[in-house]
Amino acid sequence: MTHPTLVVIDPVTAGSRRPIAQRLRRHDPTVPVVRVDDAGITRGDGVFESLPVVHGHPHALDVHLARLQRSAAQLDLPELDLTAVDAAVWYAIELHEDSELLVKIVVTRGVDHNPTAWVHACAAPDYTSQQREGVRAVTLDRGYRADVARTSPWLLAGAKTLSYAIHTAALREAGRRGADEVIFVSTDGFVLEGPTSSVIARFGPVCATPATDQGILAGTTQITAREVFASHGYDTVERPIPRDTLDRCDGLWLVSSGRKAVPVVELDGRPLPVDRDLTDVLLRGLTDATHAASPLAVGSG
Amino acid sequence: MTHPTLVVIDPVTAGSRRPIAQRLRRHDPTVPVVRVDDAGITRGDGVFESLPVVHGHPHALDVHLARLQRSAAQLDLPELDLTAVDAAVWYAIELHEDSELLVKIVVTRGVDHNPTAWVHACAAPDYTSQQREGVRAVTLDRGYRADVARTSPWLLAGAKTLSYAIHTAALREAGRRGADEVIFVSTDGFVLEGPTSSVIARFGPVCATPATDQGILAGTTQITAREVFASHGYDTVERPIPRDTLDRCDGLWLVSSGRKAVPVVELDGRPLPVDRDLTDVLLRGLTDATHAASPLAVGSG
Repeated sequence: MTHPTLVVIDPVTAGSRRPIAQRLRRHDPTVPVVRVDDAGITRGDGVFESLPVVHGHPHALDVHLARLQRSAAQLDLPELDLTAVDAAVWYAIELHEDSELLVKIVVTRGVDHNPTAWVHACAAPDYTSQQREGVRAVTLDRGYRADVARTSPWLLAGAKTLSYAIHTAALREAGRRGADEVIFVSTDGFVLEGPTSSVIARFGPVCATPATDQGILAGTTQITAREVFASHGYDTVERPIPRDTLDRCDGLWLVSSGRKAVPVVELDGRPLPVDRDLTDVLLRGLTDATHAASPLAVGSG
Repeated sequence: MTHPTLVVIDPVTAGSRRPIAQRLRRHDPTVPVVRVDDAGITRGDGVFESLPVVHGHPHALDVHLARLQRSAAQLDLPELDLTAVDAAVWYAIELHEDSELLVKIVVTRGVDHNPTAWVHACAAPDYTSQQREGVRAVTLDRGYRADVARTSPWLLAGAKTLSYAIHTAALREAGRRGADEVIFVSTDGFVLEGPTSSVIARFGPVCATPATDQGILAGTTQITAREVFASHGYDTVERPIPRDTLDRCDGLWLVSSGRKAVPVVELDGRPLPVDRDLTDVLLRGLTDATHAASPLAVGSG
């Protein structure tokens, strides 16, 4: 396995007059980058994106950059220079030897409100066993009502922030319950998302994803997944999904840019129907999309 | 103003056979300590404590260390060697020239589950104007029910974690509403805490603090504040406090180890009664406690 590559961006904020080439710096990934007084480490005050790269092609980079900018705006961070971030992503990819990568973009509020930013590229983990065997999931209370993003924007629901400790805590709780994965549910009983994935469920001829106005992340992969389902004759809808309806679904998947699609074979200890053929269709569709150029333009939101 | 001092602890986990002196390392605070693949920065996955130091004496260090260990346990972090952390705090204090300090202890899940830990000491900010003039506060929805720590421990309510982005987002929302501070309220209408403080309210002869089983931090300063009130003839209680009762209170304070006590002069735009004499009593009592030895022993929780 080859070593990760790391490119630091300084400054990352819009309005800098320095040429982009002078703002990107290759950095040894084993050498620390973050000071102890950086708001990113003292308060998890920052935003991130993760995306897969296959044969030098970053998947839906523009979509991820647009979401990074939206997350930054939700946190009242300065406007980011996405051209510089884009250049850093390509630089980190070029420096890496592997053909399948996972790229992470991080921007923190930094020291004295001067953001710290970097792009980190490492060899992509192998998810084939999860994709083939599926995962056992548990539903866990997310603590929030489904309308929390509308009523209480300061809770940052739907922003991809560095304050993700409860996401890993929830995954540990799943482990204690003998499961691999988590599906968060709102206090008023609606399906939300996984800690690192979006949820997609099939009910007969309809494939449904939870409405993204429920304080959840606008998943980049679930958009492509719905396109794949639609191209195979399914109706696709984005709507509130009550938790108890999942017991009647004909298929349930967790989708994310890294793992693509993973079927849920068991939910809260009860077996779910698993459609291997449809999973293959979905995986092939998402893989093709990763290889193809991004269908969506920057600035879509 | 003098420079901060920084002491890195490696390893910080219990069971290390290395002598403590070899595990503490003085570090330049302007030189980064955290790698980009540290769970502390990628997911806000870690815990912290802040405490004031006056004339070389850290306030209630044992109480803060015990709470650090409890927070670490809530996050399933390895058991910490509090003797090493204690030694690092004293080392960071000795290195600093100022007489009034704010010391911060941080432990992250680290890289590959090897925790990263440090103690950072800087000159204490001056809060006298807030203590004298008071602050305007707004109540903001915390999104959670008051019983969330009991029903959903994976939400880590009541742990002092590095995932504090919503705390700073709430303070920015307060600023937009023309206020300085926030008092979080549960979705079922109970007073919780401030982003960096505990709440204490006087109703006639009774001084009340919110019950700490409501998913809030067991504030170290509110314990001392209640002792001060008790020694001045007030009944003190810890109980659920409905938000609307605050409109009838005879005094409201935010207390924290750094700022000690700050009177709330206005809540959601409505003036509150301000008792300058009682605020002075409280400040004097908390200052005396900071100078005295800690009344509570380690391992209390």
